[in-house]
Amino acid sequence: MISEFDLIAKYFAKPATKADLGVGDDCALLRQTTGMQMAISTDMLVSGTHFFPDTDPRQLGHKSLAVNLSDLAAMGAQPIACTLAVSMPESNETFIAPFAEGLLALANQHGCELIGGDTTRGPLNICITVFGQIPTGQALRRDAAKPGDEIWVSGTLGDARLALAHMRQELQLEETQFQRVLPRMLKPTPRVELGIALRGIAHAALDLSDGLLGDLTHILDASHVGASINTDWIPMSKILTMQETSWRHQCTLGGGDDYELCFTAPPEKHDQVIEAGKRAGVTVTHIGKIEEETGLKLYNASGTLHQDNIRSFDHFAAQKK
Amino acid sequence: MISEFDLIAKYFAKPATKADLGVGDDCALLRQTTGMQMAISTDMLVSGTHFFPDTDPRQLGHKSLAVNLSDLAAMGAQPIACTLAVSMPESNETFIAPFAEGLLALANQHGCELIGGDTTRGPLNICITVFGQIPTGQALRRDAAKPGDEIWVSGTLGDARLALAHMRQELQLEETQFQRVLPRMLKPTPRVELGIALRGIAHAALDLSDGLLGDLTHILDASHVGASINTDWIPMSKILTMQETSWRHQCTLGGGDDYELCFTAPPEKHDQVIEAGKRAGVTVTHIGKIEEETGLKLYNASGTLHQDNIRSFDHFAAQKK
Repeated sequence: MISEFDLIAKYFAKPATKADLGVGDDCALLRQTTGMQMAISTDMLVSGTHFFPDTDPRQLGHKSLAVNLSDLAAMGAQPIACTLAVSMPESNETFIAPFAEGLLALANQHGCELIGGDTTRGPLNICITVFGQIPTGQALRRDAAKPGDEIWVSGTLGDARLALAHMRQELQLEETQFQRVLPRMLKPTPRVELGIALRGIAHAALDLSDGLLGDLTHILDASHVGASINTDWIPMSKILTMQETSWRHQCTLGGGDDYELCFTAPPEKHDQVIEAGKRAGVTVTHIGKIEEETGLKLYNASGTLHQDNIRSFDHFAAQKK
Repeated sequence: MISEFDLIAKYFAKPATKADLGVGDDCALLRQTTGMQMAISTDMLVSGTHFFPDTDPRQLGHKSLAVNLSDLAAMGAQPIACTLAVSMPESNETFIAPFAEGLLALANQHGCELIGGDTTRGPLNICITVFGQIPTGQALRRDAAKPGDEIWVSGTLGDARLALAHMRQELQLEETQFQRVLPRMLKPTPRVELGIALRGIAHAALDLSDGLLGDLTHILDASHVGASINTDWIPMSKILTMQETSWRHQCTLGGGDDYELCFTAPPEKHDQVIEAGKRAGVTVTHIGKIEEETGLKLYNASGTLHQDNIRSFDHFAAQKK
């Protein structure tokens, strides 16, 4: 069996380029620059909880880093480095080789250098910590939403949950439809470029990992504000549009794992937001408004309040926990 | 069952003092200072691999952070912050409350602020990433040992392995002896103050987690040098001194988990090293010398080479993997 040291050397120890010191010592060393903040996030993915045990290792490598980069994106930070700790039942090269390939391909795409890590024996568990740079004071924080702000989301919502629904046989998609939504669950795209493009434009932001209702509530709580959302404005894929209303709501409002950004910006920056989306290569859609009065109100296109449904939407959000 | 958010809020979300932004957003934010480097290390501890499933949660909280702080110590870095990711079978307050207490007590002692984390469902697994500050260029790296350097270790070696030997019934200690060595395994002391005191004095350093022979070899390989060690100079506790020679060697040379520092310094700094130990409140012992010729030679007090034994020492080191 290949040892821990050999595994690290073979697949993960690349010469440091951004870091002052990379893999191979007790610590890695990153240079600091006055006027910049280091954004740091850590996420743990567990087999059976966050992914199916038979998930393709290459996609798992991608997703493990993607969910972390998504946290940097949500702050508007530029990725610079990451550490990787993995426990696995055995030092299995047929797993680790494609896993490393998937992870490093995404890391390279974003200039995110692997600077350290730990491999050990145990049930499959992947813990990544990411580091990003952001000029001091420009981070998009959850507590920065202001009454009057427009609420936006990137891309389309709900396809990851739709794919999961098919896999759980909660509903039945055609095979071609399933194959089109599946990558949204297995291989999410962190909106790094959009987060950076929104610096100085957006007020508050976060990434949608637990579903729009639950995640937006974090912004509202942290900012001590409320919001109204027009559920008919929420962008979704053509395939999701073809599903029953209750599934459209479940997937877009309660479904997690989309890793799109949800953010707020003052209405006078409406055009700049659209422009930032264009620069970042992703559509951005205005779905509602931040209000002084706390609480989250859901409307449909005709302006009617979803009075009776709010409790069931809450239930969708609660299901995810 | 208490939810993930409630758990974090209740036990881990303290107001940030050093960090610009702590627990509760997508990322934490740390201020940067030109002329300083950020030292970063991550370690994963798995139930059944790194600790017994019935380990006292308070001690486990201490040890989980201690092994990470030990990596900062080995670079000479001043701890500033850490993140914690935990997976556990259920949100169990009777576990998490004392675990948090043990971890935060050690964190506070070293001014190491918990700035973020993740809690999730899964087999018990603890992944901590630590952050330390060090003036640029002053880190004690593994690749900095020079021929002629004296080799030093802090404290005493082998008690953690001795406690393990008793628990595995490989040997039999008296109960009072066992109770005295057990804390060396369960509640190691990271040599943070010593690492900082050795800035500008020591050349290379690392912490002893896998055993002196294996760990020292990392310095020799990285620095492209060799070493001679006098095995009779290696400091050990009175209790270990009373054991058979083969166990003394096994515990001090091959035994891991002591988390003492092993470091090299030029002979003209001999007195400064002793002084640094005094300032840090830990004894430091000169055990050998760095040599130009690669390879590791082991001598006894009379200056005789342990010719036949080197292979068995290698075996001790290999057993740990």
